[in-house]
Amino acid sequence: MGFALEHGDLIDLALGAAILGTGGGGDPYIGRLMVERELDQGRRVEVVRLDEVGDGDHVIPTAMMGAPTCLIEKIPRGNEAALSLRRLEAFLGIRATCTMPVEAGGMNSTVPLLVGAQLGLPVVDADGMGRAFPNLYQDTFHVHGVPGAPMAITGERGDTAILMACDNVRREWIARGVTIRMGGCAHIAEYPMGGPTARRCAIGGTLSVCLALGKAVRQANEQHGDPFDRLVGALRETPYRHGRVLWTGKVIEVYRRTTEGFARGWVHIRDTEGPGETLDVLFQNENLVARVGARVVCSVPDLVCILDRETAAPIPTEALRYGQQVKVVGVAAPPILRTPEALEVFGPRAFGVDLDFVPLEELAP
Amino acid sequence: MGFALEHGDLIDLALGAAILGTGGGGDPYIGRLMVERELDQGRRVEVVRLDEVGDGDHVIPTAMMGAPTCLIEKIPRGNEAALSLRRLEAFLGIRATCTMPVEAGGMNSTVPLLVGAQLGLPVVDADGMGRAFPNLYQDTFHVHGVPGAPMAITGERGDTAILMACDNVRREWIARGVTIRMGGCAHIAEYPMGGPTARRCAIGGTLSVCLALGKAVRQANEQHGDPFDRLVGALRETPYRHGRVLWTGKVIEVYRRTTEGFARGWVHIRDTEGPGETLDVLFQNENLVARVGARVVCSVPDLVCILDRETAAPIPTEALRYGQQVKVVGVAAPPILRTPEALEVFGPRAFGVDLDFVPLEELAP
Repeated sequence: MGFALEHGDLIDLALGAAILGTGGGGDPYIGRLMVERELDQGRRVEVVRLDEVGDGDHVIPTAMMGAPTCLIEKIPRGNEAALSLRRLEAFLGIRATCTMPVEAGGMNSTVPLLVGAQLGLPVVDADGMGRAFPNLYQDTFHVHGVPGAPMAITGERGDTAILMACDNVRREWIARGVTIRMGGCAHIAEYPMGGPTARRCAIGGTLSVCLALGKAVRQANEQHGDPFDRLVGALRETPYRHGRVLWTGKVIEVYRRTTEGFARGWVHIRDTEGPGETLDVLFQNENLVARVGARVVCSVPDLVCILDRETAAPIPTEALRYGQQVKVVGVAAPPILRTPEALEVFGPRAFGVDLDFVPLEELAP
Repeated sequence: MGFALEHGDLIDLALGAAILGTGGGGDPYIGRLMVERELDQGRRVEVVRLDEVGDGDHVIPTAMMGAPTCLIEKIPRGNEAALSLRRLEAFLGIRATCTMPVEAGGMNSTVPLLVGAQLGLPVVDADGMGRAFPNLYQDTFHVHGVPGAPMAITGERGDTAILMACDNVRREWIARGVTIRMGGCAHIAEYPMGGPTARRCAIGGTLSVCLALGKAVRQANEQHGDPFDRLVGALRETPYRHGRVLWTGKVIEVYRRTTEGFARGWVHIRDTEGPGETLDVLFQNENLVARVGARVVCSVPDLVCILDRETAAPIPTEALRYGQQVKVVGVAAPPILRTPEALEVFGPRAFGVDLDFVPLEELAP
């Protein structure tokens, strides 16, 4: 059965979403505040399980698109995603019966909640990435051959583009260009799909996973427990199963540029508990590959999460800075992201990194 | 009464359109070949006068958008503009009853002819610029407050974006971004309007002007007459009224970059019949301002046309090169482009050139 999200849930959900966001998806803090305001005004956020989605349902996922660095200076107006969905509905001549996240990560876990509250639509407890990825086509819908077009992109001034593209990769290319012109971040409604397609292609339960991970970390901090132990323990109860602390250290250098509609760069983290080695993490909105010299310790699609060393609070890539004391946690991606077809879309080579993917469990700790 | 365009007309029309194009609008050579192929296949191009457009007509103008330099390497597929119009129709839920040029210049005078032939739609003998201008909002429709949105942009792969923008300037900004992503040039359908709006805001008779100018120059060459005399004479019978040779010389330097979706630069033309002074012409797709030192000899919205010295064949900005022997002809813009409201959109300051517009007739010869 579905459930209604409460204020307290939102704190846990935003925290868990930022962990699965692996540095990207946008800081969920603003997204959480916006959803809280809707709840304060008496609106509801109704979450339904993926297997509750019916054959006659029309699912239109909603999200923020762009460089999270831009969100720091340009706070969303708040109605962009709902407007985007409405304009896509008008174009398609259908009405959505529910919305859904396209990525389980950062602000993009809260955007559909805001849309759900504003438009009175249930939000499906599922997504297409099981984490955050930078490109529009990096999701299980694309892996299953579902077209993301027609899609709508809406900026904070209400400008909207409806895109029909010949494939999802081309769609990303054009949509990214529109997003850049809209100021580096915009909101989208994409992958309009019937209920059966959603049930077949989405990764179910990821909003619940965010809630559970956030709750575990929050409670550990409240009870003065070890939030990393609790996080790893909570992961064991989810489709992610395996997580472990890969590194403990201090951020000694960050290189970050907002370019081509993405925040790209790398961070160096000096080991403070070992022989003084350095972990290098490459990112494109999201953390992609963590290496010590040539040795890979975790890579996409597995999750590289950079968390505050004391509280396990996730640090988004746009907030990384010199001197932060962190632990880096690796999390195994769900099996659906590790098939050969999925690895072509999510694996290291999909990001131009010439590496074979090796599951976290098989890499030397 | 309207008339059907014949093969012979197309040669004159393309030549005249390239003159009014003032260096921009895209070389009409390819556009002419594409229309000729349609005629060869038995299709017709029916031209109707602006005052024949009825109250119940739906006019959807069509055009090429982007940097003419890109057209040299990326020849259009041929169906982009028709597809763009069809997709805009589908979005609007109406059927166009005619198409129309948005600019009288270069390839953009032939694009609507191609669409008309392919879709069996009459083409209105009118446009919104009376020449070519680089930006989407630089037309009489915008001056009259007509929204250009919703508009469609289609690339050669069939990718299409439908844009709704809060104003025409914003629309240009986003559409230009899409065009860049589509490879620097694309085709558009914009300013969907009713018959009364077309009659009120368009500049009538500009296809006929292209035909007349092209015919005068062609006949002068065939009869070994002076094509410049004939061109100036033919202009006197049109709303442009006044034209004159401003300069005779040799191209001694060209600076041209394809940037931000435009071909931008300047050309220096050394006087070969006087004291050896240099005429500088600034361009953004189209020639904008011609100066000798600080002295302006012709500026937007008046037309600066760079023509071959012997044949008066127009030289588009993308084809300018060292050593060309040219005459530069200035042409007075029609009065509708010279009102105070129009000058805010078409005048030198609209292109970042800090000059008051002075009509060609009042400038020293």
